[in-house]
Amino acid sequence: MPPLHRHSLIYIVLSEVIRENEIVATVVQLDKRRRESDKALDALVSLVEDDLKAVNHTIVERMHSPVALIPQLAGHIVAAGGKRIRPLLTLAAAQLCGYTGNRHIKLASCVEFIHTATLLHDDVVDESALRRGQSSANALWGNQPSVLVGDFLFSRAFELMVEDGSLKVLSILSRASSVIAEGEVHQLITTNDTDTSEAQYLEVVQSKTAELFAAASRIGAIVANRPEVEEEALQVYGVNLGTAFQLIDDVLDYSAKQQELGKTIGDDFREGKITLPVILAFRRGEATERVFWQRCLEDLDQQDGDLDRAMDYMTKHGSLADCINRAHHFGDVARDALGIFPESDVKTALLGIIDFCIERAY
Amino acid sequence: MPPLHRHSLIYIVLSEVIRENEIVATVVQLDKRRRESDKALDALVSLVEDDLKAVNHTIVERMHSPVALIPQLAGHIVAAGGKRIRPLLTLAAAQLCGYTGNRHIKLASCVEFIHTATLLHDDVVDESALRRGQSSANALWGNQPSVLVGDFLFSRAFELMVEDGSLKVLSILSRASSVIAEGEVHQLITTNDTDTSEAQYLEVVQSKTAELFAAASRIGAIVANRPEVEEEALQVYGVNLGTAFQLIDDVLDYSAKQQELGKTIGDDFREGKITLPVILAFRRGEATERVFWQRCLEDLDQQDGDLDRAMDYMTKHGSLADCINRAHHFGDVARDALGIFPESDVKTALLGIIDFCIERAY
Repeated sequence: MPPLHRHSLIYIVLSEVIRENEIVATVVQLDKRRRESDKALDALVSLVEDDLKAVNHTIVERMHSPVALIPQLAGHIVAAGGKRIRPLLTLAAAQLCGYTGNRHIKLASCVEFIHTATLLHDDVVDESALRRGQSSANALWGNQPSVLVGDFLFSRAFELMVEDGSLKVLSILSRASSVIAEGEVHQLITTNDTDTSEAQYLEVVQSKTAELFAAASRIGAIVANRPEVEEEALQVYGVNLGTAFQLIDDVLDYSAKQQELGKTIGDDFREGKITLPVILAFRRGEATERVFWQRCLEDLDQQDGDLDRAMDYMTKHGSLADCINRAHHFGDVARDALGIFPESDVKTALLGIIDFCIERAY
Repeated sequence: MPPLHRHSLIYIVLSEVIRENEIVATVVQLDKRRRESDKALDALVSLVEDDLKAVNHTIVERMHSPVALIPQLAGHIVAAGGKRIRPLLTLAAAQLCGYTGNRHIKLASCVEFIHTATLLHDDVVDESALRRGQSSANALWGNQPSVLVGDFLFSRAFELMVEDGSLKVLSILSRASSVIAEGEVHQLITTNDTDTSEAQYLEVVQSKTAELFAAASRIGAIVANRPEVEEEALQVYGVNLGTAFQLIDDVLDYSAKQQELGKTIGDDFREGKITLPVILAFRRGEATERVFWQRCLEDLDQQDGDLDRAMDYMTKHGSLADCINRAHHFGDVARDALGIFPESDVKTALLGIIDFCIERAY
């Protein structure tokens, strides 16, 4: 058996737990092409390994339902091997704040449930056929159960929070949930609209992605009963980390490097999503280029070679490189936010996650 | 101007409030063919009229978002003129329990938000073109915003609950939400399956419909800080009322009377939903009839005249009449549940609502 990276191990543990629950789990494939930046994620996972196992157990246990389709469908997406960045933030932030109880387990699970519910609904909205390199739940089971199981997971998340019993946490996560939904609707409106500004794009990113990163991080300080200044620091860390994460995600959708690695690119292009790489290329481009962007992204009139042409324009205007620069800016703000915490392994790991999020682009 | 019935007035007030918020409200048409049973609803509305106005204001206020599509879409369904039975139950139950504060306003709004969110998602799942006689939100705006605005309303409901601050209420409503989602998935599985038993059908009904009726009623006792026995009584009232309500809804979908009144019938038939009228006709029918039901509801192979034939079989076997008898049973249980409360106008009105729910069938 080849040596396993720590967080790959966690996924395998999860797969086994799911199998115990009679869900056919997808065997998680180990990525042979692991890169330097992944070590930062491994470092964080190793610091909270037992907690993450407990979170995975809680997730499997709490997605149970006598209606078998619910754990089947939810298990499919949960087992598909996301990076668990959001619950990891809760676990690590709690450790950073010296927390020694176990409330963070349930709350980290709850954060992952909210995230999974939004993924299920996103895939329906985007009509995605793939999620994390595998068939999406809506492609396998149809849109109907994806909508409803998303609702179930979302409700279950609230049940977990209510069990925890903190109105402060409930307030933060219910607020985050409506901000996420608001951001998703906002994104839907900006789709196919090349007039979308960088500011509007950032608003969408901060609602649909960064808000949950922020809430996940902040909860660490709340369970540890730390002063407001630490809550605020973790909130600022999370929102900026989440923004950088989404910027890089949007870069990766046009990344030649990703293409070389055999990963799908161009989904945003095909759907006409107006992400920052497009916004920069559109605004820096000549009139003929703008006509091209409008045809492809507004009219969705796309031909063979259009994606390559889009990527050429992005290279010409340095728009991917500048998106990465923008991501560095948010990463820097996240880094400074943690300045008030004393040095520790977990602080180093949380700083490493910033690099991990950004260096995925290289 | 013709005389207006009280609850029609409420809808007009709501339409005006919505118009103030720059949402184009649908003018609510007055039903000229109001029947005896509707008086029971009017009686209840008149007892809680000011509270219901406050609920309508809260609903409009709290569905606001800077993302304009959210109040537009949510306003469409909210203004479409549902009967507001669920929030009415909260308001009336609170009055029955002698409550004099104002927590019930926010919580009744929250109940209606949960209900509206499930309607939006239901219409996506059912691919419905109509809701309450008007174009459904998904038909007007597409499935995508319907899914996301449903999520928003659902999150907003939790924000309202968190503002109220009762963990007990939060527990009941988060539990109800996941039971509803479970029931909807369960219904999806039984759709097109003529093997569905009456017990399975009842499980679906009690999850997807009766649970929220029960929670809405129970909250009245909780805000009034009444003993457990009264909470339980209202829970039993709600669950049985909700069951009777859904049974009659399912009868109405095959009702010749409804057809005479110009209302759409046969939606369940066209979708292959296995409701009690079908279950009884199928189980009481001969082999040739079962082949018919299987062709229409399992294979969805339907021809002109099939709906009439289905209704003929139902008449032959008395299945609609017996569904109404079953509904009477649940109505009777609901009635007895309120036995522990002293006589009062609001108790009489709550008992009248049982008749209202069932007499819609005649």
